[in-house]
Amino acid sequence: MDKVNIPEALDSVTEYWSQKIIGEANGQLYKVAKGIGATNWHKHDDQDELFILYKGHLTISLRDRDIELYENDMFIVPKGTEHRPKCDEEVQFLIVGLNITSNAAGGKPNL
Amino acid sequence: MDKVNIPEALDSVTEYWSQKIIGEANGQLYKVAKGIGATNWHKHDDQDELFILYKGHLTISLRDRDIELYENDMFIVPKGTEHRPKCDEEVQFLIVGLNITSNAAGGKPNL
Repeated sequence: MDKVNIPEALDSVTEYWSQKIIGEANGQLYKVAKGIGATNWHKHDDQDELFILYKGHLTISLRDRDIELYENDMFIVPKGTEHRPKCDEEVQFLIVGLNITSNAAGGKPNL
Repeated sequence: MDKVNIPEALDSVTEYWSQKIIGEANGQLYKVAKGIGATNWHKHDDQDELFILYKGHLTISLRDRDIELYENDMFIVPKGTEHRPKCDEEVQFLIVGLNITSNAAGGKPNL
């Protein structure tokens, strides 16, 4: 494969809460996505989900606390943990996991 | 776990080519490291190795070409592929793989 510039890859994303694969290593998919508003509450019973923020301010609500992410912050939502990403303005992030989770089961809202 | 700010985690690294674990997800270790000069040529038969550059300019030499990485560039060295990271000035990066590879088998130089 070639190198990938992550902000450039993010520039090419046109739909909110829609993951675009930019690489695969050791069975993990490295995906970029943009978000605005919030997803629905959801959890992934098969995988941890890792976020790295590239732009904006993303709140990841868990049932017992909110995690406030800014640029270059990393957070891992453990397998089976209910969560809800939300933001007032557009966010851009890298998300790592075993498959594409930007679907109804993964909390994707109808925009 | 709590969130981790990746540049702050990098600030706390004191030894070149020495990986510091900042998270674990789906069996992958997320590690930060600084480098200067070059490692020795090496390969990992058990894992792909993923780099994301946070600071500086890192050349990853492969046997048939050089990959030039700048800030926010991502590159995956496939399992079994000989490689040699090198740089003239300090670089800071995130590295993802199955275990700590900053050892003699992983090309770590005697500085």
